[in-house]
Amino acid sequence: MNILFTFVPPETVQEGIRQEYSDFAIHFSRIGSAADFLPEAEIIVTYGEDLNEDYIEKARKLKWIMIMSAGMEKMPFEACARRGILVTNARGIHKIPMAEFTIGTMLQHVKQFPAIRRNEEREEWDRKVKVGELAGKHLLVLGIGAIGGETARLAKAFRMKVTGINRSGREHKDADQTDTFQNIEAYLPDADFIVSVLPSTDETYHLLNEEHFRLMKETAVFINIGRGNLVEEEILLKVMKERIIAHAYLDVFQTEPLPKGHPFWKMDNVTVTPHISSITENYLPRSLEIFRHNFEAYRNNHGSYINVIDLSRGY
Amino acid sequence: MNILFTFVPPETVQEGIRQEYSDFAIHFSRIGSAADFLPEAEIIVTYGEDLNEDYIEKARKLKWIMIMSAGMEKMPFEACARRGILVTNARGIHKIPMAEFTIGTMLQHVKQFPAIRRNEEREEWDRKVKVGELAGKHLLVLGIGAIGGETARLAKAFRMKVTGINRSGREHKDADQTDTFQNIEAYLPDADFIVSVLPSTDETYHLLNEEHFRLMKETAVFINIGRGNLVEEEILLKVMKERIIAHAYLDVFQTEPLPKGHPFWKMDNVTVTPHISSITENYLPRSLEIFRHNFEAYRNNHGSYINVIDLSRGY
Repeated sequence: MNILFTFVPPETVQEGIRQEYSDFAIHFSRIGSAADFLPEAEIIVTYGEDLNEDYIEKARKLKWIMIMSAGMEKMPFEACARRGILVTNARGIHKIPMAEFTIGTMLQHVKQFPAIRRNEEREEWDRKVKVGELAGKHLLVLGIGAIGGETARLAKAFRMKVTGINRSGREHKDADQTDTFQNIEAYLPDADFIVSVLPSTDETYHLLNEEHFRLMKETAVFINIGRGNLVEEEILLKVMKERIIAHAYLDVFQTEPLPKGHPFWKMDNVTVTPHISSITENYLPRSLEIFRHNFEAYRNNHGSYINVIDLSRGY
Repeated sequence: MNILFTFVPPETVQEGIRQEYSDFAIHFSRIGSAADFLPEAEIIVTYGEDLNEDYIEKARKLKWIMIMSAGMEKMPFEACARRGILVTNARGIHKIPMAEFTIGTMLQHVKQFPAIRRNEEREEWDRKVKVGELAGKHLLVLGIGAIGGETARLAKAFRMKVTGINRSGREHKDADQTDTFQNIEAYLPDADFIVSVLPSTDETYHLLNEEHFRLMKETAVFINIGRGNLVEEEILLKVMKERIIAHAYLDVFQTEPLPKGHPFWKMDNVTVTPHISSITENYLPRSLEIFRHNFEAYRNNHGSYINVIDLSRGY
């Protein structure tokens, strides 16, 4: 059996994979240079951004595609469906890094680490910095699914109050209360941290407007690790220029990379990070773990796959 | 009944206290200006650094001293014992801010927030920063009592492995394993974060030596929020100059404030914070909560005080 990885991991990782799957023919090659391997490949392991109908057609023996990420906008699902190819992905591996990033951001804010670091640079021993706490603060999570839920779980460990917003308003085990976006105005005036992990959909496009920000506390902190088009950029700029809330930590933007010279870079109440919340040293090990599990299911034909994609729905 | 506060909180806090205890005579005055109030004071509320035998003698009606901190090195315990004065303190209020500070420091390290911030200052969108995680990392807590235990509890929520070191080696509910310092060499080579919350005692003075650091990983991170004399300063300087471990986050020092020009300030693998881990906006509210509880016990004479000090032992 031939397995084609359409990305080339570090040598040590390649070696580990070859050893673990030593009974099989393993090829590491970007798809553009994989013409020799494609016709024989029974399994393709990909980041999901390099396949197209043509490649699927050439991969005559292909039975299973493992996507090592959660993004699948570029996948040729129809071609896969016609051939009955199994598609699985690595959904779920983002929740730990993104939740850690969010809590780290909130701690940075209340503990004033950047201000303390500026004092350090001046060799200034200043104990008057106003240090706060997460304990007792109110976190409002927009989109309490896997990532938002993990964030909520950690927030509860920090003795925070947590309100979750989701489509159905159904309860979440790590939120004190859950509701739908329709009722969000009831929670905005009390929230200390408003965190969005919402994806980009028709429903979430420009969902937060100026009025929502005007309902928040002056001390409120907005953290966006979901998608940049949740708020119209001009609105967010206005909100932060007028200091309607205390701080915005933005990891996602309408245009990425955020261009040099963009006002967000220099605003003292806006912190820009380069869409980095899901990045982690554990990305590959964790997605390989899902591959490992699914490979066992595939080999033994017992069918208990993780993250099977419904090709007709695309998720 | 007269209650003397030997510190002067903000007006709004004074007002709140006066309202809450409106049946009693409340005085706010530093001890040096409190000569008129001392003879009538039945209760003294203090930070514990301003009393002496002379004041105790003058406070002829004094029955209870509430210390709004945990430090009691300067308390005239013998004089209190002779008069049978009840002494209680605010032990336990440090654990939340100090544990949050420690987790915040660890997240800052793995998420590389300072490096990302430097990129932000240059308006540089750089996603190649090597971002890590707390999940799966090994935390070694030197001194797993109230503060170390709260840190361990949070670390477990972050899916870390936790080893606790205490005097007895007895188990702690939030540590995967606990042991005594004698056996620490078994844990140092595996630890990713070594956090000390140890107080200054004869036992802890210069307890960590060069050999201990040489047993740690090159990637290890040392965080000291206990006392500066845990490690001889020259040793710690040498360890960090030779880059035997990756980073030291120091909140406490042999000499405080850390003098300007001290090499720690400028070392890229040492982060200096000004003994700030226990500072929080909630300090006064939280110690007042203990006072409130104990005041009820005192008034109703039901004896269920929090944090009664054994005057013969001094803690």
